[in-house]
Amino acid sequence: MSKSNNKLSIIPLGGVGEIGKNMTAYVYGNDIIVVDAGLKFPEEEMLGIDIVIPDITFLIENRTKVRGVLITHGHEDHIGGLPYFLKLLNVPVYGTRLTLGLIEGKLREHGLLDLVKLNVITNKSVIKLGEFTVSVFNNNHSIPDTVGFAIDTPEGVIVHTGDFKFDYTPVDGRPADFFKLAELGEKGVLALLSDSTNAERPGYTMSERVVGQTINDCFASAERRIIIATFASNLHRIQQIIDATEKFGKKLAVVGRSMVNNITIAHELGYIRMNPGTLIDPDEVNKLPAEQVVVLSTGSQGEPMSALTRMARATHRKVEVMPGDTVIIASSPIPGNEKFISRTIDQLFRIGADVIYQAVSGVHVSGHGSQEELKLMLNLVRPKYFIPVHGEYRMLKRHSELAVSTGVDPDNIFIVDIGDSIEFQGGKGRLGPKYTAGNVLIDGLGVGDVGNIVLRDRKLLSQDGILVVVVTLSKQDGAILSGPDIISRGFVYVRESEELLEEANKIVTQTLGKLVSENVNEWSSIKNGVRDALGRYLYEQTRRRPMILPIIMEV
Amino acid sequence: MSKSNNKLSIIPLGGVGEIGKNMTAYVYGNDIIVVDAGLKFPEEEMLGIDIVIPDITFLIENRTKVRGVLITHGHEDHIGGLPYFLKLLNVPVYGTRLTLGLIEGKLREHGLLDLVKLNVITNKSVIKLGEFTVSVFNNNHSIPDTVGFAIDTPEGVIVHTGDFKFDYTPVDGRPADFFKLAELGEKGVLALLSDSTNAERPGYTMSERVVGQTINDCFASAERRIIIATFASNLHRIQQIIDATEKFGKKLAVVGRSMVNNITIAHELGYIRMNPGTLIDPDEVNKLPAEQVVVLSTGSQGEPMSALTRMARATHRKVEVMPGDTVIIASSPIPGNEKFISRTIDQLFRIGADVIYQAVSGVHVSGHGSQEELKLMLNLVRPKYFIPVHGEYRMLKRHSELAVSTGVDPDNIFIVDIGDSIEFQGGKGRLGPKYTAGNVLIDGLGVGDVGNIVLRDRKLLSQDGILVVVVTLSKQDGAILSGPDIISRGFVYVRESEELLEEANKIVTQTLGKLVSENVNEWSSIKNGVRDALGRYLYEQTRRRPMILPIIMEV
Repeated sequence: MSKSNNKLSIIPLGGVGEIGKNMTAYVYGNDIIVVDAGLKFPEEEMLGIDIVIPDITFLIENRTKVRGVLITHGHEDHIGGLPYFLKLLNVPVYGTRLTLGLIEGKLREHGLLDLVKLNVITNKSVIKLGEFTVSVFNNNHSIPDTVGFAIDTPEGVIVHTGDFKFDYTPVDGRPADFFKLAELGEKGVLALLSDSTNAERPGYTMSERVVGQTINDCFASAERRIIIATFASNLHRIQQIIDATEKFGKKLAVVGRSMVNNITIAHELGYIRMNPGTLIDPDEVNKLPAEQVVVLSTGSQGEPMSALTRMARATHRKVEVMPGDTVIIASSPIPGNEKFISRTIDQLFRIGADVIYQAVSGVHVSGHGSQEELKLMLNLVRPKYFIPVHGEYRMLKRHSELAVSTGVDPDNIFIVDIGDSIEFQGGKGRLGPKYTAGNVLIDGLGVGDVGNIVLRDRKLLSQDGILVVVVTLSKQDGAILSGPDIISRGFVYVRESEELLEEANKIVTQTLGKLVSENVNEWSSIKNGVRDALGRYLYEQTRRRPMILPIIMEV
Repeated sequence: MSKSNNKLSIIPLGGVGEIGKNMTAYVYGNDIIVVDAGLKFPEEEMLGIDIVIPDITFLIENRTKVRGVLITHGHEDHIGGLPYFLKLLNVPVYGTRLTLGLIEGKLREHGLLDLVKLNVITNKSVIKLGEFTVSVFNNNHSIPDTVGFAIDTPEGVIVHTGDFKFDYTPVDGRPADFFKLAELGEKGVLALLSDSTNAERPGYTMSERVVGQTINDCFASAERRIIIATFASNLHRIQQIIDATEKFGKKLAVVGRSMVNNITIAHELGYIRMNPGTLIDPDEVNKLPAEQVVVLSTGSQGEPMSALTRMARATHRKVEVMPGDTVIIASSPIPGNEKFISRTIDQLFRIGADVIYQAVSGVHVSGHGSQEELKLMLNLVRPKYFIPVHGEYRMLKRHSELAVSTGVDPDNIFIVDIGDSIEFQGGKGRLGPKYTAGNVLIDGLGVGDVGNIVLRDRKLLSQDGILVVVVTLSKQDGAILSGPDIISRGFVYVRESEELLEEANKIVTQTLGKLVSENVNEWSSIKNGVRDALGRYLYEQTRRRPMILPIIMEV
């Protein structure tokens, strides 16, 4: 029950209506806490953009109130926006040991490591941040040390699951905190914010151990070298690969920068168990008998510059895939990557490797719970209100149907967009005002300097290229002194289209003559005249619309 | 048995190692026949390209020998290249009635209809083309009137399946010609070229009738309007939608140009059965009670300009999706389209429609046979040699494993690339020489005028845009008379980056001064100098590499 006139507001700043850049703000009176600060990979139409982070204008405007950022786990869509966030808003960060280990690497790259206060938490922690008291519960996910938060507020307890599945036989022997979740439910939970990634998927997600069994089977039957690619952050799977390597008396080489980094951090922190001597340098791969070698690699999404793709194309400095090698791609394609991965698989088959991938075997399970697990979470927590998060709209919608099926009142479910707020006062929830939220695009070192106009130009340029038309006119009578010269980039290859460009030249000359004879002397009118006449001609001839940039000089 | 010194060559000019642009040449002595002339949709990196067709240099070089083109069915990946082919090589075309009906539409658009000889075939036809005698067998596929060919040559019989599945309960009551296939097998088949699309998929592909049942269920439970999107060429499915419309006493409006075209052609030719009065004009949709309306639409791939996408965004002229409507997306995403389709589904859910799509129900089955059907074809035909076609490399590979499992000698299997030839002489097959083959890119009206350089420029332009640097130098002393002016498109938005561009200006001025003082006077050296200095500065400041186009004038 509320003891004052204050209210609790929950404001998702990222991660709803989209996959990625997860971030949720909890506001009560003069206190704000933030859960997660993720990034998103660019949509297809965001040409040239490297990553996308949440717009945190709302937090900047309330900067004195922000008490800290709580991180659920170490995946990019939960930590990738953190360096940019901390540059604008240097507040304490709370995370488990492995999560902070991965964050440290990022902060070091951004020169922030010494400036930020990192606080290690465990599932025993109770974190007091202004009016908020946050306790921590363990979850299963595709990276170790994943947690969720129970956020006690004057209005009641909010359970924020973070990403989760229920793995009854977890590789790290660290089960979910069933008792804590059930106890929260028993005492009464005001609202549940729960992971919707697999809300469309019926049944249960299988245990990560299933993949371990498949890996063992593959190792048992491989006759020559084994090359296995998976997500660099899936340390459970990496542990099972190490276990299989040791069980079959093989040696393991690791290639790919993020794979080496993650294994190094995880091993230092004790999240990876490995016998001395298991690991070899990639240089040694070619010196050992083929049947002793396992190569663990990045590139399970077929990314063009990744280690696996380079090995498949024989452009990797140290390891090359050979006929008879067994290549295991232990992942499933992230939507949008299907074509890349197919190409890599084709390339590997062409070399003569035996390729094991998801379409024909079980070398991947999801890190997110399917429908029955989502219902189990709802049954444990028994929330009064439900806010599906971490998903595109249809997933949130489906998740809300699951919530209704477990007994949540349909009027107590909020499917929201980023920037929407849900307010709780006196035990009642309602939609509140909408706050600033959105995409901040990062291109190289630029944060937010690429906007719609630049993207629109990149789109135009990518479709039909550009023609630059250069001409010098006489100041006195407007006669053409030099040019027109037409320079084409990405439109047509000049040598193949001389006739077209010659005719284009004539059109420009005629147009300029006409404009001058009509005494048009505003620069913008002359440029538009040239652009229109030339554009019309080129469209007639080619059905293309290149960008046309007239450069008219006067001397 | 070969009676002369001649040999049979089979040359896939498209459709192997790729999905799309199917085309195979059969060569014997002075005779060539071609099966199919398809198009392919552009790969991601083919920026601005509309479609891709096979390179037919080999056929042009042997133009007097080409006796005709045989078409298996009316899908774009089998007929879409035909107009371009016929412009270069006007030979008779052979196809079933529906296939030719669809081809006629294309030829009309290209102004070719009166110039080309179209020959209707049925499964009773025997086509004599030089040394080749082609007979025709019926297949099941996701478009009616699909056939395959048995090509009798002096070396033996080749069976070319075309796209197929075995549908034991076909919607049009036209089963596959099992007896013909079995009879061919019994008499002896030299080689089988068979569809590999679903070679990775275990089991059987379900009958199209299953979709009809799902459609009926959806129609029975829908309370308001039904909007259903599917492939415009899947006339079996369209027939079942018409049947359901009539069964439930509803009216059908058709939207989307290709859907209207295909239904018109198919109805005229008798491939669609419909009661008078079933069809209504889209204008009438809003005049009828919601429960009487069915709208059949294109856009099942979420294509941005399609009717469904426009209806979802309320930008369609005649029909808008309303809360409570049932939207059925009766297709599965073609690889690469997943994101488009997800966005459309999300948009429809946001409107408040009830959306039925593949992830959660059975509104689509494939038109291609799965592994057991591919093995059935192999069992019927019992070929001596096997050439898997119509698939990316891994599919061909998997299909060849299936062939081995049915008893084909592994040494008698050829997995080939486009342009490879397989030669048969005296009953023996071997790999022959490699012929010219490849991608011809079509951009607007241009056929093959966009090559690697243009595509590379488009790629560069799409990533970081372009900077045009304009400066006028004095002919006498090289002093700068005007400029440098820097024009940015797709790099940064100028108003946001004034400082950066001012500094860039200074760099250009300094560089030019230095080059002039060093008496560098070759244009290319001056331009390269400016490009390098500016590029270096911009990369340091932004980590981006825009295209830089220096335009240096001398007066």
